[in-house]
Amino acid sequence: MSIPFRACILASAIVASLPSQAADAKLDKRTVTNATTLATAGAQDTGAYAIVESLTTEIGPRLAGSAAYDRATKWAEEKFKSLGYDRVYLEPVSFPTWERHHESAEVIAPYPQRLIITTLGGSVGTGGKPIEADIVEFATIEALKLAPAGSLAGKIAYISNRMERTKDGHGYGPAVAARSGASAAADKGAVALVIRSIGTDSDRLPHTGMQRYAEGSTKIPAAALSNPDADLLSNMVRRGKPVTLRLDIDAGHTGATKTEYNVIGEIRGRKLPEEVVVIGGHLDSWDLGTGAIDDASGVAITMTAGAMIGRLDKAPLRTIRVIAFANEEQGVFGGRAYAETHKAELDLQQLGAESDFGAGRIYSFRAGVAAEAVPVIEQIARLLEPLGIAYEAGKGGPGPDIEPFAKVGMPWAQLAQDGTDYFDYHHTANDTLDKVDAKALDQQAAAYAVMAYVAADSPVDFGRAPPLTGEE
Amino acid sequence: MSIPFRACILASAIVASLPSQAADAKLDKRTVTNATTLATAGAQDTGAYAIVESLTTEIGPRLAGSAAYDRATKWAEEKFKSLGYDRVYLEPVSFPTWERHHESAEVIAPYPQRLIITTLGGSVGTGGKPIEADIVEFATIEALKLAPAGSLAGKIAYISNRMERTKDGHGYGPAVAARSGASAAADKGAVALVIRSIGTDSDRLPHTGMQRYAEGSTKIPAAALSNPDADLLSNMVRRGKPVTLRLDIDAGHTGATKTEYNVIGEIRGRKLPEEVVVIGGHLDSWDLGTGAIDDASGVAITMTAGAMIGRLDKAPLRTIRVIAFANEEQGVFGGRAYAETHKAELDLQQLGAESDFGAGRIYSFRAGVAAEAVPVIEQIARLLEPLGIAYEAGKGGPGPDIEPFAKVGMPWAQLAQDGTDYFDYHHTANDTLDKVDAKALDQQAAAYAVMAYVAADSPVDFGRAPPLTGEE
Repeated sequence: MSIPFRACILASAIVASLPSQAADAKLDKRTVTNATTLATAGAQDTGAYAIVESLTTEIGPRLAGSAAYDRATKWAEEKFKSLGYDRVYLEPVSFPTWERHHESAEVIAPYPQRLIITTLGGSVGTGGKPIEADIVEFATIEALKLAPAGSLAGKIAYISNRMERTKDGHGYGPAVAARSGASAAADKGAVALVIRSIGTDSDRLPHTGMQRYAEGSTKIPAAALSNPDADLLSNMVRRGKPVTLRLDIDAGHTGATKTEYNVIGEIRGRKLPEEVVVIGGHLDSWDLGTGAIDDASGVAITMTAGAMIGRLDKAPLRTIRVIAFANEEQGVFGGRAYAETHKAELDLQQLGAESDFGAGRIYSFRAGVAAEAVPVIEQIARLLEPLGIAYEAGKGGPGPDIEPFAKVGMPWAQLAQDGTDYFDYHHTANDTLDKVDAKALDQQAAAYAVMAYVAADSPVDFGRAPPLTGEE
Repeated sequence: MSIPFRACILASAIVASLPSQAADAKLDKRTVTNATTLATAGAQDTGAYAIVESLTTEIGPRLAGSAAYDRATKWAEEKFKSLGYDRVYLEPVSFPTWERHHESAEVIAPYPQRLIITTLGGSVGTGGKPIEADIVEFATIEALKLAPAGSLAGKIAYISNRMERTKDGHGYGPAVAARSGASAAADKGAVALVIRSIGTDSDRLPHTGMQRYAEGSTKIPAAALSNPDADLLSNMVRRGKPVTLRLDIDAGHTGATKTEYNVIGEIRGRKLPEEVVVIGGHLDSWDLGTGAIDDASGVAITMTAGAMIGRLDKAPLRTIRVIAFANEEQGVFGGRAYAETHKAELDLQQLGAESDFGAGRIYSFRAGVAAEAVPVIEQIARLLEPLGIAYEAGKGGPGPDIEPFAKVGMPWAQLAQDGTDYFDYHHTANDTLDKVDAKALDQQAAAYAVMAYVAADSPVDFGRAPPLTGEE
């Protein structure tokens, strides 16, 4: 996942105050039996791990705009087909192409040594030759913003704040603001920005991720140091002598627009096939790792869940639509394209959920649906309990690729994953298969299957999502 | 440390069978009091961590032969002086220069993606242009040696065995043989060797380390994949299609011989100043990390121990000689030079010990000394007990830079460190300051101080070490 992760409290009084016991989930006995069977399957090999292994091994890094992403598109089409989906198709997604070619950094004085950096997504390069400039360290982006006008003229700004480790990832929000600090630095005269990686590890593997320039500001290169390198640089700065850095970056938007595709597989509904329950992950990844946790896992979990539903004796009332979204990382292009393409079909979008928070076990189920549908959500919650998942009413928010549609009313659900270790590997070269626990994926595939199946097999309409609070 | 770490069982029947209670350590009461004070100091800040911080921050990576090593030499001289050593001097160490310039690897078919490698020390490059060849995987070096003659013609041999994690590092020996597998591969016709890193981690940071070619074999490039990359490559090979790798390495011996220096600091003995107790670590490091655990920690622990002894009210009988050895990593050049330079003074070398197994706490004390000196060793053992260190008679071996002299009779001691995590970081870019626990360093500095002080303040002669068994 790429977009700023904010504290997820949905202040939805509508949902939380409902006398749900009085309502009815209107489920067949068979639906409940099938859902229980799907939940039980989470204790066995669902095949989800094999899908992560396949995508990371056969395709590997798949930066949007790259030839590898095109191969990933073919891979996803074939995988849906081999899993027995009824219909597999593509929907176009267009975006500007950004490329990374070369990046290096070294302290040249007073303590010469190499530093390990990665260029932040969307950054410009250093203009064909290295930049050499002194570092000015700031503890936070807020401190940088308070620097006097012109005080960074000719300098490289360095923001050194460290991200806090939490289960739900709420340490990400306060830290990640630094990632888009280039314009604030440029406005004070800086020639480049380096930041401490937005990550919780102590590995010499920096975290990339998208950064954005403010309108009208000079675009300067922006890069992240690994946590050990940030420690090192801060220890140098603390000694009091000017610390001079050489930065050499060749990266940037090419000026071209590329069209790629959301890859979609459907298990066709038996009675209301036009109505859809949407689940998915994103197919693209950053280029440093093989994108195992971000987000081959999300793709595999939801592909597997759909396939599990497809293998039931009878299809659910509604269609299960599994989407492998294109280019989430560089700005939720896949999710925005889906919302735009289907905006006339808002009423058909019954429920949407994206898995994009790594490969850790799901511990919480949350949803934003119309009041009438809350009994179904509560029924799903009861069916998820054997998987160790608790229901949290009035909390959470949609995944990044669901959010654009949820903002205009698409009902959403969230199966919140344990993200304690997620930001150790997020957007680094270390996002590889060995970080994925097959049993945790099985639990998740089963949970998505239960949720999507029951939502698709209940005749209750999920209506419109309560308005998002902007805190999602 | 660089040299193959073998199972450390010293079958020294002489030492183990001594009726030590009958002998006498001949220690003053004051010596015991001072030793107890030194041990107690291990619970406070000994200053060892600040030395590691200084070397890694102000110098960083210091590959033997590099300009950084020359800076490290100056750093060590100044550090000894600032710690109040009585005498600081240099002794020359010469060796052939090896340089790393560029290294990259990628699978070009059938699953194109980049692999992360590091060239092994001493390796040749790919001759100015990339090598492209198919992979042949072997589970072990032994399996490679069994391959039919000529069967690897034009291929890249790949050895995929994984090192086992243990406290005493005994998993290193069986695994590290693969690192010098290039000649065995070349003898079967291979054009290059890649191995799974000799390391216990799951990080995308490959482990370098010295490899050697056999006399008369064609020299082919040799590189290590990170553990996740090795998993990836094995998963590709398992699919059954030929896997083609492109390897591009610019590295090699320059043909030049360079002279660097062992940096030596002494706390002069008050009565037998020509007799020395030698402790030390090695000053050089591999070039990927900042050499915090390998071996700034060893340098800092022993420098600090000497300084602690120097601050006592009265110097010990004998001289404490602390050596920051040059170029251990590429072939124990510093240790061999010391043995050669001082070979006529074998009788003056009372006891030698090197700290070169990371930054983990010391849990065991071992020694190889003449029978007459065993009571002193046992007395030291009792004084080390409060630091949580157990005595193990008849076990262990000298550190790498002590071994050349110990082989001809220099008595040795070993303060064995907990190496459970050592091979997670060993010879990788991840060998950085954040991996070092300051309190563990304090315990170690105190232990070295106790051992060196008591050995230097006992009038008992340590004689000659029992013959080494070749298992050290």
